[in-house]
Amino acid sequence: MVVYVGVCGPDPAPPDVAAVAEEVGRLLAHEGAVVVCGGLGGTMEAVARGASGAGGTVVGILPGASRGQGNDFLTVAIPTGMGEMRNALVVRASDVVIAVAGEFGTLSEIAFALKTGTPVFGLRTWELSKPEREVADPIVRASDPHEAVRAALQLATS
Amino acid sequence: MVVYVGVCGPDPAPPDVAAVAEEVGRLLAHEGAVVVCGGLGGTMEAVARGASGAGGTVVGILPGASRGQGNDFLTVAIPTGMGEMRNALVVRASDVVIAVAGEFGTLSEIAFALKTGTPVFGLRTWELSKPEREVADPIVRASDPHEAVRAALQLATS
Amino acid sequence: MVVYVGVCGPDPAPPDVAAVAEEVGRLLAHEGAVVVCGGLGGTMEAVARGASGAGGTVVGILPGASRGQGNDFLTVAIPTGMGEMRNALVVRASDVVIAVAGEFGTLSEIAFALKTGTPVFGLRTWELSKPEREVADPIVRASDPHEAVRAALQLATS
Amino acid sequence: MVVYVGVCGPDPAPPDVAAVAEEVGRLLAHEGAVVVCGGLGGTMEAVARGASGAGGTVVGILPGASRGQGNDFLTVAIPTGMGEMRNALVVRASDVVIAVAGEFGTLSEIAFALKTGTPVFGLRTWELSKPEREVADPIVRASDPHEAVRAALQLATS
Repeated sequence: MVVYVGVCGPDPAPPDVAAVAEEVGRLLAHEGAVVVCGGLGGTMEAVARGASGAGGTVVGILPGASRGQGNDFLTVAIPTGMGEMRNALVVRASDVVIAVAGEFGTLSEIAFALKTGTPVFGLRTWELSKPEREVADPIVRASDPHEAVRAALQLATS
Repeated sequence: MVVYVGVCGPDPAPPDVAAVAEEVGRLLAHEGAVVVCGGLGGTMEAVARGASGAGGTVVGILPGASRGQGNDFLTVAIPTGMGEMRNALVVRASDVVIAVAGEFGTLSEIAFALKTGTPVFGLRTWELSKPEREVADPIVRASDPHEAVRAALQLATS
Repeated sequence: MVVYVGVCGPDPAPPDVAAVAEEVGRLLAHEGAVVVCGGLGGTMEAVARGASGAGGTVVGILPGASRGQGNDFLTVAIPTGMGEMRNALVVRASDVVIAVAGEFGTLSEIAFALKTGTPVFGLRTWELSKPEREVADPIVRASDPHEAVRAALQLATS
Repeated sequence: MVVYVGVCGPDPAPPDVAAVAEEVGRLLAHEGAVVVCGGLGGTMEAVARGASGAGGTVVGILPGASRGQGNDFLTVAIPTGMGEMRNALVVRASDVVIAVAGEFGTLSEIAFALKTGTPVFGLRTWELSKPEREVADPIVRASDPHEAVRAALQLATS
């Protein structure tokens, strides 16, 4: 069974974040996973470049109604015309999600994944807490791309 | 201009959270605001009960395809058939969002609001941080329903 | 139980179509039904004007992300940011649909309603046929607003 | 530039319709086009089988939240959790649409395509007319799979 891994993070992405995303994409392609992302720039472009460079399949689910807005490394580009609501579709299409750093869009993908029971693995991404009480971290933290990819695929195929 | 205020929080809701939500609904109705919520139980039902009891208008945007799943206090019930993706529609329909405590669904509404530029006011809700650096709290914290409603309406009408 | 009636038709609307839509809106409001429409101009504005002028409730489900694009006669305006895909939400929110004349947008609402089992009543609207075989007309045809409204509400409450 | 061709039709499909759809899929794959469909059975499965058997790429956009409901011939399967509203996404993802026979779901895809300016080619599919006036057929009729595929790709690449 092929595993679909959603990868999200900021756009634009600082160089160190882009490097991590590209490595995540490369490793996922090596493992035969399909990469799902939002199809635009920054982290989305970096993970797509990494995966496609390693011969992998990359699905980009785009916010606009035109395929032309997608980055150059998508195997399949899906325009939706739904705007930022497409973040939920990125998660729906994914068996697991890896979040790399990220801003509010990434947070929306993390939250939608957690709500719908899709496991989330995080590399230097959002930390979530509640006032006045302890909550277990709902994100599985990884220290580098190898650990994130290995843990994500292990869970998805178990 | 009528202000639409999205109110989100957990379902089911502990009694103290429900009491806060009901008071938020009552106050919003007094101020002539339209309450938008997810239309189901817990916080959604409490805010709807508070607002409708005070003569206000409550819009419930439902995850399923049947209006029958809505709570008893909705002025207008909108089935969507989109599942949890309807959380994004609750935010789209709101000028400002008030989050009361909450779990992952609430987090998804907070995140989608922040992503799309809709101001978020929080009552004992999620706290967000990033590793290794300081970020300004993107949620305007309030200590009680009066403060949350006053601040939310002030911003929405300014 | 309140009945929600989706009313769709062209935008812009020729004067005779607008007159029919306005009368449909007026009659629905007299019967206590909630009118659901796409919230913009033409037929959508005419039915909203008719219903709101008779004291009724009108829900406008808008394609864009801004409430400001709605016409002046909406009781509740719901921006979606989903573009033309919101046509499906207009149908989801309706117990029955009345189509008045119409172009391709109206056809999409008729089709989505028929697909999801929502009854469709038609006033001078699209006619559907298949090559090489007879199919029963899936649209209940009415000759004037009174007949359409009476038949739609009768079915919805039976 | 790769062309994405949405192919829609009934599920279940009579044998002659399935044969036509399979041939459409085979021809599209030969021409290097990506096939987009709703991912389930009947026509969707037939076109996917034809395309994948000829080495083509098939994207299935599924109504449910589980990838498992997709047929066995999809290169990429995208669960959406949006129910029948995903029909609009099938069209959004397509540069042109080929409709093979079909029921109300196909009609919804035809209508949404016409509304959003996506050209529609038809093989024995719905015929649309308006009462009391002539309208040009908005669907480009083809008499067999070769003609439909050739005309669709010619338009999409012109």
